[in-house]
Amino acid sequence: MAENVFGAVELGGTKTFVVIAEDKKNIISRHLFPTLSPKDTMENIATFFKNKSVELKLNIQKLGVGCFGPLDLNKDSALYGSITSTPKKGWEYFNIKRQLENALNVPVKIDTDVNASALGEYNHVYNSNINNFAYITIGTGIGGGFIINRQLVHGLVHPEFGHIRIPHNKKKDPFPGICPYHQDCLEGLASGPAITERWHQPSNSIPKDHVAWKLEAEYLSHAITNLICTISPELIVLGGGVMHQYQLFGLIHTKTKMVLNQYIKSKFIQEHIEEYIIPPRLHDDSGIMGALILAMQNTD
Amino acid sequence: MAENVFGAVELGGTKTFVVIAEDKKNIISRHLFPTLSPKDTMENIATFFKNKSVELKLNIQKLGVGCFGPLDLNKDSALYGSITSTPKKGWEYFNIKRQLENALNVPVKIDTDVNASALGEYNHVYNSNINNFAYITIGTGIGGGFIINRQLVHGLVHPEFGHIRIPHNKKKDPFPGICPYHQDCLEGLASGPAITERWHQPSNSIPKDHVAWKLEAEYLSHAITNLICTISPELIVLGGGVMHQYQLFGLIHTKTKMVLNQYIKSKFIQEHIEEYIIPPRLHDDSGIMGALILAMQNTD
Repeated sequence: MAENVFGAVELGGTKTFVVIAEDKKNIISRHLFPTLSPKDTMENIATFFKNKSVELKLNIQKLGVGCFGPLDLNKDSALYGSITSTPKKGWEYFNIKRQLENALNVPVKIDTDVNASALGEYNHVYNSNINNFAYITIGTGIGGGFIINRQLVHGLVHPEFGHIRIPHNKKKDPFPGICPYHQDCLEGLASGPAITERWHQPSNSIPKDHVAWKLEAEYLSHAITNLICTISPELIVLGGGVMHQYQLFGLIHTKTKMVLNQYIKSKFIQEHIEEYIIPPRLHDDSGIMGALILAMQNTD
Repeated sequence: MAENVFGAVELGGTKTFVVIAEDKKNIISRHLFPTLSPKDTMENIATFFKNKSVELKLNIQKLGVGCFGPLDLNKDSALYGSITSTPKKGWEYFNIKRQLENALNVPVKIDTDVNASALGEYNHVYNSNINNFAYITIGTGIGGGFIINRQLVHGLVHPEFGHIRIPHNKKKDPFPGICPYHQDCLEGLASGPAITERWHQPSNSIPKDHVAWKLEAEYLSHAITNLICTISPELIVLGGGVMHQYQLFGLIHTKTKMVLNQYIKSKFIQEHIEEYIIPPRLHDDSGIMGALILAMQNTD
């Protein structure tokens, strides 16, 4: 008899990551391939799960997907499970959930990539008393996934934390920002491409003691301060490619305390900020593990 | 036999509002008195409920309190139900919940004033499909109470939305801001006292077509944009004394759409923002009605 397992997909702008697992500790199979056209990508995903099911005698019960956005996540919408408006050719209004459900004949739970990452990290956290949790990714874009009262935040659309506005001192940093919608929103000032464009070099080639990182930490500290003042998370995880620059953590710890200026009366923040704002424990697997949990928790 | 009823207290910095009600539609008695020393205020509250209980043959089952902060709302804390650090003489570390429980011998549920207002407005909203809701008060201070997945947001401490940082163009507005902790945070730039100090006149004497209101709307629109990008509320209510200047609503609708610049793909925001960002339906009763609901929903 075939073993009951779960499938997970992390669908990114350039790469697609697929996993089959018994549960979050027992991964049976994993595979990474480039994200191509919607049709080819869906075919590659379906083929992987179909072939592995036969080869390893597995019965995939449910599938979870963490996907680039913007997505329509409103269950009452005709477009539920679709990508909405995107400049990515062919993906606009493409219904990921429906396509995969039809191809694999299993229930599919879909959420944004950053919500999946938040869920992955949250479920890997050791302190089970945490109710409010934040995951921020700083990479090609900036996004936030938030868990409040133990549930992911969706709302009217879904959070677009990268597009909050923060103070931009143009005298100190005349770089105008690169967001095509807002110019100097958080993503426009502090994403990987913004760093590259401001300093005329790839962000990962900038020396660790370069002033670039101090400025980056300043912008991120303002964003983190705003997050603390809005949802008061009990733990904040910072992931994404830019945060591979680990020297940023110390700079962010110092600067966030300066910006908050002891207003938030929390011993944890005031005395142990290095345990409050931390790197992902799952490293680059937060998203795929979150997609797996989406599948496992799906009761739709 | 005495009738079973609920008690509600809105404890403000200068005024205390008390109510006895059967439910949210049937108010039996209401009274307003000045907030004095902690001891005298507690005595006034207790005396009101005790006297009315005897006079009207009522049995107060539970009490709800919306209170100025900061408060310790961590159920596991020894200070649960206390005001924490405050410059208000005598109130520092004063345990409101315990004092009222001892005086009246009923369970007391306490939350911040702005969370109580959020709860009051949320429960008065006609569309019961709303899961994520925001109430912002703009008055002597600025605060936000948020309901996400149908529950109030607490977290590590509690939200302090007034202290988020927003862009401050010092060339256009050289006023430095008045927050003693952060100078030009949202509250430092846009609270009632900030308006009064910037324009050298009480905010309610400034003409409706004065540039003061356009600037105010700009700061509030940045804050609302940040809120939308962070928790994606389905409805935003703006209350507090400054919002009695109703001309602000139109200015905020226009400016918020400009700041978002069509990035958030919501027909509701793009086409009906005047139904999305609205005044309180309970006018100045949001807080006391929320305190009543705190009592009614208390299952501790």
